[in-house]
Amino acid sequence: MNDKKIVVQKYGGTSVGTPERIKAVAEKIRQYVDRGISVVVVVSAMGHATDELIKLSMEINENPSRREMDMLLSTGEQVSISLLAMALQNIGIDAVSFTGSQIKLVTDGNFSNAKIQSISTERIMKYLNENNVVIVAGFQGIDDDENITTLGRGGSDTTAVALAAVLKSRDCEIYTDVNGVYTADPRIVEHTKKLNEISYDEMLELARLGAGVLHSRSVEFAKKYNIKLHVRSSFNSEEGTIVMPREEMMEKFLISGVTSKLNEAKITIRDIPDRPGIAAKLFELLGKNKIYVNMIVQSTGHDNKASISFTVLKENLKDAIAICNSLRGEFGISQGIESKENIAIVSAVGVGMLSAWGVAGRMFKVLSDHGINIEMISTSEIGISCVIDTKYAELAVKAIHEIFIELGQV
Amino acid sequence: MNDKKIVVQKYGGTSVGTPERIKAVAEKIRQYVDRGISVVVVVSAMGHATDELIKLSMEINENPSRREMDMLLSTGEQVSISLLAMALQNIGIDAVSFTGSQIKLVTDGNFSNAKIQSISTERIMKYLNENNVVIVAGFQGIDDDENITTLGRGGSDTTAVALAAVLKSRDCEIYTDVNGVYTADPRIVEHTKKLNEISYDEMLELARLGAGVLHSRSVEFAKKYNIKLHVRSSFNSEEGTIVMPREEMMEKFLISGVTSKLNEAKITIRDIPDRPGIAAKLFELLGKNKIYVNMIVQSTGHDNKASISFTVLKENLKDAIAICNSLRGEFGISQGIESKENIAIVSAVGVGMLSAWGVAGRMFKVLSDHGINIEMISTSEIGISCVIDTKYAELAVKAIHEIFIELGQV
Repeated sequence: MNDKKIVVQKYGGTSVGTPERIKAVAEKIRQYVDRGISVVVVVSAMGHATDELIKLSMEINENPSRREMDMLLSTGEQVSISLLAMALQNIGIDAVSFTGSQIKLVTDGNFSNAKIQSISTERIMKYLNENNVVIVAGFQGIDDDENITTLGRGGSDTTAVALAAVLKSRDCEIYTDVNGVYTADPRIVEHTKKLNEISYDEMLELARLGAGVLHSRSVEFAKKYNIKLHVRSSFNSEEGTIVMPREEMMEKFLISGVTSKLNEAKITIRDIPDRPGIAAKLFELLGKNKIYVNMIVQSTGHDNKASISFTVLKENLKDAIAICNSLRGEFGISQGIESKENIAIVSAVGVGMLSAWGVAGRMFKVLSDHGINIEMISTSEIGISCVIDTKYAELAVKAIHEIFIELGQV
Repeated sequence: MNDKKIVVQKYGGTSVGTPERIKAVAEKIRQYVDRGISVVVVVSAMGHATDELIKLSMEINENPSRREMDMLLSTGEQVSISLLAMALQNIGIDAVSFTGSQIKLVTDGNFSNAKIQSISTERIMKYLNENNVVIVAGFQGIDDDENITTLGRGGSDTTAVALAAVLKSRDCEIYTDVNGVYTADPRIVEHTKKLNEISYDEMLELARLGAGVLHSRSVEFAKKYNIKLHVRSSFNSEEGTIVMPREEMMEKFLISGVTSKLNEAKITIRDIPDRPGIAAKLFELLGKNKIYVNMIVQSTGHDNKASISFTVLKENLKDAIAICNSLRGEFGISQGIESKENIAIVSAVGVGMLSAWGVAGRMFKVLSDHGINIEMISTSEIGISCVIDTKYAELAVKAIHEIFIELGQV
């Protein structure tokens, strides 16, 4: 039996982008091995390997089958795991690498966006017990028929969290090229702060609202299995940000992050008869057409007529308008369908909001003080989002960040 | 049930070296599909992909474990199979690709030089019956424990022949960058001829003696399972050379090929006591040290003392001499151990020799006529080899080729 503490670490593509960096990752892992910790490592494909494979495939078939695409892309991680095993062996550490297939990481058959169903721990535990570092290819699995599947963008994070779950480890470290989760994008806000801790729900809300450091599914998994996700840099040894249960957090801020999304567009349908089922029908049809809807606001107008506004990705705007138009007759829509492309969704996220009065009001006031008009408002338990004109997005983020974070928190 | 004729085709690295060439291979396959033939395709890694992966690994670990090396190198073929499947799908042909693992191509656990033990045909037949072209990664398999193994250089040829064997097809086409098997290296001999047919044994002897077009193991496999190997170019539609049972050959030449090997060196040990077991001990020890011995000649001298000459690869010469020296005392060797690096082995191969008198004599005479001294002679049932000075190698090959092949055969 292995009574040693198990840590799962995930290194992203930038962290293993060159032979030198792979060697540096091996040295980082050595520090854990030297402390008597069992290490399971998940790696992504090297640097731009995945993009290069996609480019190669496009020269052959612009619309390749997803099964063959997964067959192709999964080689990227297989290269990384073998090279990392060699790097560890080179410094005298026993290491063994496994593909998704070899540890029976079984997914559904949804190629290119598969969901993990089960993982066998038998082989991993056998090699951990023999004091090996076990290296697992991220992003990939097999379906029931042993076809190779991939988990979609950010899938390696999910592999790492799922491994922590089945290995009953609470410790999952996500090594990346930033130092952790920040209160805002440092390219926009000068006095941004790194968070030491953040709750699962806040992290999910930030991911949804435009902060890209972790993939949502990995955070959902971590929440479900109560795993602490430590997001940190592979280029230094600083502590990063721990994504964890809210109850265990030492520091709780009113607002943990301010985000903006610029790639959405707004559609407004006015004077819809206010009867049940119309909104359901509209959003069901958008969903069927794989059009992702972010914010939805419905307001009742005069004469029992309602108005619905919602945002979709800019790239889907045309299709979404066409779908709205196709429902005109059925819904009795007489007015025009308005759309606007140059919008931004600016959001403040924080569990502290749950217990604090007046956060929304303070946020609206700060926008108003800067002469920024709010076109839509949507609130969740832990977030407030406002749709404004794109040209005010940076100004809004800076102003909200300043009042809620820089000027001191509760 | 599939009553269609099954053909196994193998395309080498040059044939799938670029996206354009992969598309051309797809067009070639289409011609078979259009004729109602079931096609199983084995592909190698693209062009220099394998060499590039080796180079990458060397930057990390100069002495990588063979298990991890196989994990790394097997990705090369996985890239090719997925791209070829995409290329076929792009021209409307159903195709599916499989790794060695997915068709349960099981080998022994000898990483980097594994031997095939079994292949499951179930999945391949299922997809052939559904009118798919089935594409299989060459060069790779899995051991009993599902570790990825590779079959060594030329392994994709062996994969193709093994597939033909288990699929009970007699037709295996090896597409390469030459038009077939030639009577001599066209870079040396001007009037070289392409053979339409050659027997398994001659092909094996040619491979052993320096002609590189097919890997020996694939020919042994083909002989064992009575499969016709059609070696031909992927860049034109000319008929190539069929490697087949001698009994079925239409044309039988006295000599089917003339070869030379320049990468060997000669060692001579004189005045060894002529008693049993000495040669056995020497060559057993060389074998244990993985030193490959090609030619061996033993002659009895005076006073019950013998002299042994043998050739080893130049790169092994130093080690081989050291081993000989280590046996001096035990063997009672008093004389010096001589070695010579600048030798060439010139050989004539042909099943016709079996039934013809005087071939050896004619060969020695033509060398003598050109003033070339013969330092060692070795004969097998279907071949004669002479060790001569390197500087005469080209002249010897040209002269032997001229007398036996160009001046008309029996």
